[in-house]
Amino acid sequence: MSHDLTTDCIDACNACADACDRCATACLQEPDPKPMTRCVALDIDCAALCRLAAGAIARDSELARRICGLCVLACEACGEECGRHEHDHCQACAAACRACAEACRQMVAV
Amino acid sequence: MSHDLTTDCIDACNACADACDRCATACLQEPDPKPMTRCVALDIDCAALCRLAAGAIARDSELARRICGLCVLACEACGEECGRHEHDHCQACAAACRACAEACRQMVAV
Amino acid sequence: MSHDLTTDCIDACNACADACDRCATACLQEPDPKPMTRCVALDIDCAALCRLAAGAIARDSELARRICGLCVLACEACGEECGRHEHDHCQACAAACRACAEACRQMVAV
Amino acid sequence: MSHDLTTDCIDACNACADACDRCATACLQEPDPKPMTRCVALDIDCAALCRLAAGAIARDSELARRICGLCVLACEACGEECGRHEHDHCQACAAACRACAEACRQMVAV
Repeated sequence: MSHDLTTDCIDACNACADACDRCATACLQEPDPKPMTRCVALDIDCAALCRLAAGAIARDSELARRICGLCVLACEACGEECGRHEHDHCQACAAACRACAEACRQMVAV
Repeated sequence: MSHDLTTDCIDACNACADACDRCATACLQEPDPKPMTRCVALDIDCAALCRLAAGAIARDSELARRICGLCVLACEACGEECGRHEHDHCQACAAACRACAEACRQMVAV
Repeated sequence: MSHDLTTDCIDACNACADACDRCATACLQEPDPKPMTRCVALDIDCAALCRLAAGAIARDSELARRICGLCVLACEACGEECGRHEHDHCQACAAACRACAEACRQMVAV
Repeated sequence: MSHDLTTDCIDACNACADACDRCATACLQEPDPKPMTRCVALDIDCAALCRLAAGAIARDSELARRICGLCVLACEACGEECGRHEHDHCQACAAACRACAEACRQMVAV
Protein backbone atom coordinates (compact mmCIF):
# COMPACT_ATOMS: atom_id res chain seq x y z
CA MET A 1 0.00 0.00 0.00
CA SER A 2 1.19 3.54 -0.67
CA HIS A 3 3.03 5.26 2.16
CA ASP A 4 0.78 8.34 2.01
CA LEU A 5 -2.43 6.37 2.24
CA THR A 6 -1.32 4.33 5.23
CA THR A 7 0.18 7.33 7.02
CA ASP A 8 -2.99 9.35 6.45
CA CYS A 9 -5.13 6.52 7.78
CA ILE A 10 -2.96 6.04 10.88
CA ASP A 11 -3.15 9.78 11.56
CA ALA A 12 -6.93 9.78 11.12
CA CYS A 13 -7.30 6.79 13.44
CA ASN A 14 -5.12 8.39 16.13
CA ALA A 15 -6.98 11.69 15.85
CA CYS A 16 -10.33 9.92 16.08
CA ALA A 17 -9.30 7.85 19.10
CA ASP A 18 -8.17 11.00 20.88
CA ALA A 19 -11.40 12.85 20.05
CA CYS A 20 -13.47 9.88 21.26
CA ASP A 21 -11.52 9.64 24.51
CA ARG A 22 -11.89 13.40 25.14
CA CYS A 23 -15.60 13.21 24.31
CA ALA A 24 -16.19 10.29 26.69
CA THR A 25 -14.79 12.20 29.65
CA ALA A 26 -16.54 15.43 28.70
CA CYS A 27 -19.87 13.60 28.35
CA LEU A 28 -19.46 12.13 31.83
CA GLN A 29 -18.80 15.62 33.18
CA GLU A 30 -21.95 17.19 31.68
CA PRO A 31 -24.43 18.46 34.31
CA ASP A 32 -26.83 15.76 33.15
CA PRO A 33 -24.92 12.76 31.73
CA LYS A 34 -28.07 10.67 31.25
CA PRO A 35 -28.67 11.64 27.59
CA MET A 36 -24.98 11.05 26.86
CA THR A 37 -24.66 7.43 27.90
CA ARG A 38 -24.84 5.90 24.41
CA CYS A 39 -22.31 8.51 23.32
CA VAL A 40 -19.92 7.44 26.10
CA ALA A 41 -20.33 3.75 25.22
CA LEU A 42 -19.69 4.33 21.52
CA ASP A 43 -16.75 6.64 22.30
CA ILE A 44 -15.11 3.81 24.26
CA ASP A 45 -15.71 1.28 21.47
CA CYS A 46 -14.61 3.62 18.71
CA ALA A 47 -11.43 4.73 20.52
CA ALA A 48 -10.43 1.11 21.10
CA LEU A 49 -11.05 0.12 17.48
CA CYS A 50 -9.23 3.18 16.11
CA ARG A 51 -6.16 2.41 18.23
CA LEU A 52 -6.28 -1.22 17.13
CA ALA A 53 -6.55 -0.14 13.48
CA ALA A 54 -3.66 2.33 13.76
CA GLY A 55 -1.46 -0.42 15.19
CA ALA A 56 -2.50 -2.98 12.59
CA ILE A 57 -1.77 -0.57 9.72
CA ALA A 58 1.60 0.40 11.21
CA ARG A 59 2.50 -3.29 11.56
CA ASP A 60 1.37 -3.87 7.96
CA SER A 61 -0.85 -6.62 9.35
CA GLU A 62 -2.52 -8.96 6.90
CA LEU A 63 -5.73 -8.22 8.83
CA ALA A 64 -5.35 -4.43 8.59
CA ARG A 65 -7.91 -3.93 5.84
CA ARG A 66 -10.48 -6.10 7.65
CA ILE A 67 -9.89 -4.13 10.86
CA CYS A 68 -10.30 -0.88 8.92
CA GLY A 69 -13.59 -2.19 7.57
CA LEU A 70 -14.87 -2.68 11.10
CA CYS A 71 -13.45 0.69 12.11
CA VAL A 72 -15.67 2.29 9.46
CA LEU A 73 -18.74 0.86 11.18
CA ALA A 74 -17.60 2.06 14.61
CA CYS A 75 -16.84 5.55 13.30
CA GLU A 76 -20.19 5.75 11.51
CA ALA A 77 -22.14 4.72 14.62
CA CYS A 78 -20.16 6.97 16.95
CA GLY A 79 -20.15 9.92 14.54
CA GLU A 80 -23.91 9.66 14.03
CA GLU A 81 -24.61 9.59 17.77
CA CYS A 82 -22.18 12.42 18.54
CA GLY A 83 -23.59 14.47 15.68
CA ARG A 84 -26.95 14.56 17.46
CA HIS A 85 -25.53 16.51 20.41
CA GLU A 86 -24.60 20.19 20.28
CA HIS A 87 -21.72 20.01 22.78
CA ASP A 88 -18.43 21.14 21.24
CA HIS A 89 -16.76 17.87 22.27
CA CYS A 90 -19.47 15.88 20.49
CA GLN A 91 -19.26 17.95 17.32
CA ALA A 92 -15.45 17.66 17.33
CA CYS A 93 -15.75 13.91 17.81
CA ALA A 94 -18.32 13.57 15.03
CA ALA A 95 -15.99 15.39 12.63
CA ALA A 96 -13.05 13.15 13.60
CA CYS A 97 -15.23 10.07 13.15
CA ARG A 98 -16.30 11.14 9.67
CA ALA A 99 -12.69 11.80 8.64
CA CYS A 100 -11.53 8.46 10.05
CA ALA A 101 -14.37 6.54 8.39
CA GLU A 102 -13.38 8.06 5.05
CA ALA A 103 -9.68 7.26 5.53
CA CYS A 104 -10.50 3.68 6.51
CA ARG A 105 -12.84 3.30 3.53
CA GLN A 106 -9.91 4.19 1.27
CA MET A 107 -7.74 1.55 2.96
CA VAL A 108 -10.44 -1.05 2.39
CA ALA A 109 -10.80 -0.07 -1.27
CA VAL A 110 -7.08 -0.47 -2.10
CA MET B 1 -27.73 -12.56 25.04
CA SER B 2 -27.61 -15.43 27.47
CA HIS B 3 -25.23 -15.10 30.38
CA ASP B 4 -23.59 -18.47 29.70
CA LEU B 5 -22.90 -17.73 26.06
CA THR B 6 -21.30 -14.36 26.74
CA THR B 7 -19.30 -15.65 29.70
CA ASP B 8 -18.05 -18.61 27.68
CA CYS B 9 -17.03 -16.34 24.83
CA ILE B 10 -15.21 -13.89 27.13
CA ASP B 11 -13.36 -16.82 28.70
CA ALA B 12 -12.42 -18.22 25.30
CA CYS B 13 -11.20 -14.80 24.12
CA ASN B 14 -9.08 -14.30 27.24
CA ALA B 15 -7.63 -17.81 26.98
CA CYS B 16 -6.82 -17.29 23.30
CA ALA B 17 -5.19 -13.89 23.91
CA ASP B 18 -3.01 -15.42 26.61
CA ALA B 19 -2.02 -18.39 24.40
CA CYS B 20 -1.17 -16.01 21.53
CA ASP B 21 0.94 -13.79 23.78
CA ARG B 22 2.81 -16.80 25.19
CA CYS B 23 3.33 -18.19 21.68
CA ALA B 24 4.69 -14.89 20.36
CA THR B 25 7.43 -14.77 22.99
CA ALA B 26 8.22 -18.47 22.66
CA CYS B 27 8.49 -18.14 18.86
CA LEU B 28 10.96 -15.27 19.27
CA GLN B 29 13.03 -17.42 21.61
CA GLU B 30 13.30 -20.39 19.23
CA PRO B 31 16.89 -21.11 18.11
CA ASP B 32 15.85 -20.08 14.59
CA PRO B 33 12.97 -17.57 14.71
CA LYS B 34 13.00 -17.01 10.93
CA PRO B 35 10.29 -19.61 10.11
CA MET B 36 8.16 -18.25 12.98
CA THR B 37 7.81 -14.63 11.90
CA ARG B 38 4.32 -14.92 10.39
CA CYS B 39 3.29 -16.78 13.54
CA VAL B 40 4.57 -13.92 15.73
CA ALA B 41 2.78 -11.32 13.61
CA LEU B 42 -0.53 -13.19 13.70
CA ASP B 43 -0.13 -13.88 17.43
CA ILE B 44 0.12 -10.12 18.04
CA ASP B 45 -2.93 -9.37 15.88
CA CYS B 46 -5.01 -12.18 17.34
CA ALA B 47 -4.18 -11.33 20.96
CA ALA B 48 -5.17 -7.70 20.39
CA LEU B 49 -8.45 -8.65 18.72
CA CYS B 50 -9.33 -11.23 21.38
CA ARG B 51 -8.77 -8.70 24.17
CA LEU B 52 -10.85 -6.14 22.27
CA ALA B 53 -13.63 -8.70 21.80
CA ALA B 54 -13.62 -9.74 25.46
CA GLY B 55 -14.00 -6.11 26.50
CA ALA B 56 -16.74 -5.40 23.97
CA ILE B 57 -18.75 -8.44 25.10
CA ALA B 58 -18.31 -7.54 28.78
CA ARG B 59 -19.48 -3.98 28.04
CA ASP B 60 -22.45 -5.42 26.10
CA SER B 61 -21.32 -3.19 23.24
CA GLU B 62 -23.65 -2.81 20.28
CA LEU B 63 -20.58 -3.62 18.14
CA ALA B 64 -19.73 -6.81 20.06
CA ARG B 65 -21.08 -9.23 17.49
CA ARG B 66 -19.28 -7.44 14.65
CA ILE B 67 -16.06 -7.52 16.63
CA CYS B 68 -16.58 -11.24 17.30
CA GLY B 69 -17.05 -11.74 13.57
CA LEU B 70 -13.63 -10.22 12.93
CA CYS B 71 -12.16 -12.19 15.82
CA VAL B 72 -13.22 -15.39 14.05
CA LEU B 73 -11.07 -14.43 11.05
CA ALA B 74 -8.07 -13.59 13.23
CA CYS B 75 -8.39 -16.85 15.13
CA GLU B 76 -8.72 -18.86 11.93
CA ALA B 77 -5.63 -17.26 10.38
CA CYS B 78 -3.55 -17.55 13.55
CA GLY B 79 -4.74 -21.07 14.35
CA GLU B 80 -3.97 -22.27 10.82
CA GLU B 81 -0.44 -20.81 10.91
CA CYS B 82 0.28 -22.09 14.41
CA GLY B 83 -1.10 -25.51 13.51
CA ARG B 84 1.69 -25.89 10.92
CA HIS B 85 4.42 -25.81 13.60
CA GLU B 86 5.15 -28.67 15.99
CA HIS B 87 6.28 -26.54 18.92
CA ASP B 88 4.13 -27.10 22.00
CA HIS B 89 3.41 -23.37 22.27
CA CYS B 90 2.16 -23.31 18.68
CA GLN B 91 -0.04 -26.37 19.13
CA ALA B 92 -1.47 -24.91 22.37
CA CYS B 93 -2.13 -21.62 20.59
CA ALA B 94 -3.79 -23.36 17.64
CA ALA B 95 -6.15 -25.18 20.02
CA ALA B 96 -7.03 -21.95 21.82
CA CYS B 97 -7.63 -20.22 18.48
CA ARG B 98 -9.99 -22.97 17.32
CA ALA B 99 -11.96 -22.81 20.59
CA CYS B 100 -12.18 -19.03 20.44
CA ALA B 101 -13.26 -19.02 16.81
CA GLU B 102 -16.06 -21.44 17.69
CA ALA B 103 -17.21 -19.37 20.69
CA CYS B 104 -17.18 -16.18 18.62
CA ARG B 105 -19.12 -17.89 15.81
CA GLN B 106 -21.84 -18.69 18.34
CA MET B 107 -21.96 -15.04 19.44
CA VAL B 108 -22.33 -13.93 15.83
CA ALA B 109 -25.12 -16.46 15.24
CA VAL B 110 -27.27 -15.30 18.18
CA MET C 1 8.66 -16.71 37.73
CA SER C 2 6.65 -19.72 38.81
CA HIS C 3 3.99 -20.93 36.42
CA ASP C 4 1.29 -20.89 39.08
CA LEU C 5 1.98 -17.33 40.15
CA THR C 6 1.91 -15.95 36.62
CA THR C 7 -1.15 -17.96 35.64
CA ASP C 8 -3.00 -16.83 38.76
CA CYS C 9 -2.12 -13.22 38.06
CA ILE C 10 -3.21 -13.41 34.42
CA ASP C 11 -6.52 -14.94 35.52
CA ALA C 12 -7.02 -12.24 38.16
CA CYS C 13 -6.25 -9.51 35.62
CA ASN C 14 -8.67 -10.94 33.06
CA ALA C 15 -11.40 -11.36 35.68
CA CYS C 16 -10.88 -7.80 36.90
CA ALA C 17 -10.94 -6.34 33.39
CA ASP C 18 -14.20 -8.15 32.70
CA ALA C 19 -15.76 -6.97 35.98
CA CYS C 20 -14.68 -3.39 35.27
CA ASP C 21 -16.11 -3.49 31.75
CA ARG C 22 -19.42 -4.90 33.00
CA CYS C 23 -19.53 -2.31 35.79
CA ALA C 24 -18.89 0.58 33.39
CA THR C 25 -21.88 -0.32 31.24
CA ALA C 26 -24.12 -1.05 34.22
CA CYS C 27 -23.19 2.31 35.80
CA LEU C 28 -24.15 4.10 32.58
CA GLN C 29 -27.50 2.32 32.61
CA GLU C 30 -28.40 3.31 36.18
CA PRO C 31 -31.50 5.55 36.39
CA ASP C 32 -29.21 8.35 37.62
CA PRO C 33 -25.68 7.89 36.26
CA LYS C 34 -24.44 11.19 37.71
CA PRO C 35 -23.05 9.73 40.97
CA MET C 36 -21.39 6.93 38.98
CA THR C 37 -19.22 8.98 36.65
CA ARG C 38 -15.93 8.56 38.57
CA CYS C 39 -16.72 4.86 38.77
CA VAL C 40 -17.14 4.67 34.99
CA ALA C 41 -13.89 6.57 34.41
CA LEU C 42 -11.91 4.34 36.75
CA ASP C 43 -13.54 1.20 35.32
CA ILE C 44 -12.26 2.19 31.87
CA ASP C 45 -8.73 2.89 33.17
CA CYS C 46 -8.59 -0.25 35.27
CA ALA C 47 -9.90 -2.54 32.52
CA ALA C 48 -7.29 -1.18 30.11
CA LEU C 49 -4.44 -1.61 32.59
CA CYS C 50 -5.54 -5.12 33.58
CA ARG C 51 -5.64 -6.23 29.94
CA LEU C 52 -2.22 -4.67 29.36
CA ALA C 53 -0.84 -6.44 32.44
CA ALA C 54 -2.30 -9.82 31.43
CA GLY C 55 -0.64 -9.50 28.03
CA ALA C 56 2.70 -8.39 29.47
CA ILE C 57 2.77 -11.31 31.91
CA ALA C 58 1.81 -13.80 29.20
CA ARG C 59 4.59 -12.43 26.97
CA ASP C 60 7.02 -12.67 29.91
CA SER C 61 7.79 -9.01 29.24
CA GLU C 62 10.74 -7.48 31.06
CA LEU C 63 8.33 -4.67 31.98
CA ALA C 64 5.68 -7.02 33.39
CA ARG C 65 6.45 -6.39 37.04
CA ARG C 66 6.46 -2.62 36.55
CA ILE C 67 3.12 -2.84 34.76
CA CYS C 68 1.75 -4.98 37.59
CA GLY C 69 2.91 -2.32 40.03
CA LEU C 70 0.83 0.27 38.21
CA CYS C 71 -2.07 -2.16 37.96
CA VAL C 72 -2.10 -2.35 41.76
CA LEU C 73 -2.71 1.42 41.92
CA ALA C 74 -5.49 1.25 39.34
CA CYS C 75 -7.18 -1.64 41.13
CA GLU C 76 -6.93 0.10 44.48
CA ALA C 77 -8.45 3.33 43.15
CA CYS C 78 -11.20 1.55 41.22
CA GLY C 79 -11.96 -0.91 44.01
CA GLU C 80 -12.21 1.87 46.57
CA GLU C 81 -14.60 3.90 44.40
CA CYS C 82 -16.73 0.87 43.47
CA GLY C 83 -16.81 -0.23 47.10
CA ARG C 84 -18.68 2.97 47.99
CA HIS C 85 -21.68 2.00 45.84
CA GLU C 86 -24.21 -0.66 46.77
CA HIS C 87 -25.02 -1.78 43.23
CA ASP C 88 -24.25 -5.46 42.69
CA HIS C 89 -22.06 -4.64 39.70
CA CYS C 90 -20.00 -2.23 41.82
CA GLN C 91 -19.59 -4.70 44.66
CA ALA C 92 -18.59 -7.44 42.21
CA CYS C 93 -16.10 -5.08 40.60
CA ALA C 94 -14.66 -4.02 43.97
CA ALA C 95 -14.07 -7.67 44.87
CA ALA C 96 -12.37 -8.38 41.54
CA CYS C 97 -10.21 -5.28 41.98
CA ARG C 98 -9.08 -6.38 45.45
CA ALA C 99 -8.20 -9.87 44.20
CA CYS C 100 -6.30 -8.46 41.20
CA ALA C 101 -4.40 -5.95 43.35
CA GLU C 102 -3.31 -8.80 45.62
CA ALA C 103 -2.22 -11.01 42.71
CA CYS C 104 -0.28 -8.14 41.14
CA ARG C 105 1.38 -7.32 44.47
CA GLN C 106 2.68 -10.89 44.57
CA MET C 107 4.11 -10.51 41.06
CA VAL C 108 5.87 -7.31 42.08
CA ALA C 109 7.31 -8.98 45.19
CA VAL C 110 8.87 -11.91 43.32
CA MET D 1 -2.84 20.62 32.75
CA SER D 2 -2.15 22.99 29.89
CA HIS D 3 -3.72 22.12 26.56
CA ASP D 4 -0.40 22.36 24.71
CA LEU D 5 1.41 20.03 27.06
CA THR D 6 -1.24 17.32 26.92
CA THR D 7 -1.67 17.62 23.15
CA ASP D 8 2.10 17.43 22.62
CA CYS D 9 2.31 14.35 24.82
CA ILE D 10 -0.58 12.59 23.08
CA ASP D 11 1.06 13.32 19.72
CA ALA D 12 4.42 12.00 20.94
CA CYS D 13 2.79 8.85 22.31
CA ASN D 14 0.92 8.20 19.07
CA ALA D 15 4.06 8.81 16.99
CA CYS D 16 6.09 6.49 19.21
CA ALA D 17 3.47 3.73 19.11
CA ASP D 18 3.42 3.91 15.32
CA ALA D 19 7.24 3.84 15.10
CA CYS D 20 7.38 0.84 17.45
CA ASP D 21 4.74 -1.04 15.47
CA ARG D 22 6.55 -0.35 12.18
CA CYS D 23 9.87 -1.38 13.74
CA ALA D 24 8.45 -4.65 15.09
CA THR D 25 7.31 -5.77 11.65
CA ALA D 26 10.49 -4.57 9.94
CA CYS D 27 12.63 -6.44 12.51
CA LEU D 28 10.70 -9.64 11.83
CA GLN D 29 11.33 -9.20 8.10
CA GLU D 30 15.10 -8.77 8.42
CA PRO D 31 17.08 -11.57 6.69
CA ASP D 32 18.25 -12.68 10.15
CA PRO D 33 15.67 -11.76 12.80
CA LYS D 34 17.58 -13.52 15.60
CA PRO D 35 19.50 -10.43 16.83
CA MET D 36 16.27 -8.40 16.71
CA THR D 37 14.12 -10.44 19.05
CA ARG D 38 14.54 -8.21 22.13
CA CYS D 39 13.80 -5.25 19.88
CA VAL D 40 10.54 -6.86 18.71
CA ALA D 41 9.50 -7.68 22.27
CA LEU D 42 10.18 -4.15 23.52
CA ASP D 43 8.48 -2.65 20.45
CA ILE D 44 5.30 -4.56 21.33
CA ASP D 45 5.44 -3.46 24.98
CA CYS D 46 6.25 0.14 24.17
CA ALA D 47 3.55 0.48 21.51
CA ALA D 48 0.93 -0.88 23.91
CA LEU D 49 1.99 1.46 26.73
CA CYS D 50 2.14 4.50 24.44
CA ARG D 51 -1.38 3.83 23.17
CA LEU D 52 -2.60 3.36 26.74
CA ALA D 53 -0.93 6.61 27.77
CA ALA D 54 -2.38 8.58 24.85
CA GLY D 55 -5.86 7.38 25.78
CA ALA D 56 -5.41 8.11 29.49
CA ILE D 57 -4.21 11.66 28.76
CA ALA D 58 -7.06 12.29 26.32
CA ARG D 59 -9.56 11.05 28.93
CA ASP D 60 -7.89 13.30 31.54
CA SER D 61 -7.57 10.16 33.67
CA GLU D 62 -6.52 10.58 37.27
CA LEU D 63 -3.97 7.84 36.53
CA ALA D 64 -2.55 9.60 33.46
CA ARG D 65 0.59 10.89 35.13
CA ARG D 66 1.36 7.49 36.66
CA ILE D 67 0.87 5.85 33.27
CA CYS D 68 3.17 8.45 31.70
CA GLY D 69 5.76 7.61 34.34
CA LEU D 70 5.71 3.97 33.27
CA CYS D 71 5.72 5.00 29.61
CA VAL D 72 9.03 6.78 30.25
CA LEU D 73 10.59 3.48 31.36
CA ALA D 74 9.23 1.62 28.34
CA CYS D 75 10.46 4.30 25.95
CA GLU D 76 13.90 4.35 27.57
CA ALA D 77 14.28 0.56 27.36
CA CYS D 78 12.97 0.36 23.79
CA GLY D 79 14.90 3.41 22.61
CA GLU D 80 18.15 2.09 24.07
CA GLU D 81 17.72 -1.32 22.42
CA CYS D 82 16.66 0.14 19.06
CA GLY D 83 19.54 2.63 19.22
CA ARG D 84 21.99 -0.30 19.13
CA HIS D 85 20.86 -1.37 15.66
CA GLU D 86 21.73 0.48 12.45
CA HIS D 87 18.53 -0.35 10.57
CA ASP D 88 16.61 2.77 9.56
CA HIS D 89 13.47 1.47 11.27
CA CYS D 90 15.38 1.01 14.52
CA GLN D 91 16.94 4.45 14.37
CA ALA D 92 13.56 6.03 13.61
CA CYS D 93 12.02 4.13 16.50
CA ALA D 94 14.83 5.15 18.87
CA ALA D 95 14.26 8.81 18.00
CA ALA D 96 10.50 8.50 18.55
CA CYS D 97 11.13 6.76 21.89
CA ARG D 98 13.44 9.54 23.06
CA ALA D 99 10.91 12.23 22.09
CA CYS D 100 8.07 10.36 23.79
CA ALA D 101 10.09 9.77 26.97
CA GLU D 102 10.81 13.51 27.15
CA ALA D 103 7.14 14.47 26.59
CA CYS D 104 6.00 11.98 29.23
CA ARG D 105 8.63 13.25 31.69
CA GLN D 106 7.12 16.73 31.32
CA MET D 107 3.64 15.34 32.05
CA VAL D 108 4.94 13.65 35.19
CA ALA D 109 6.66 16.87 36.33
CA VAL D 110 3.54 19.04 36.07
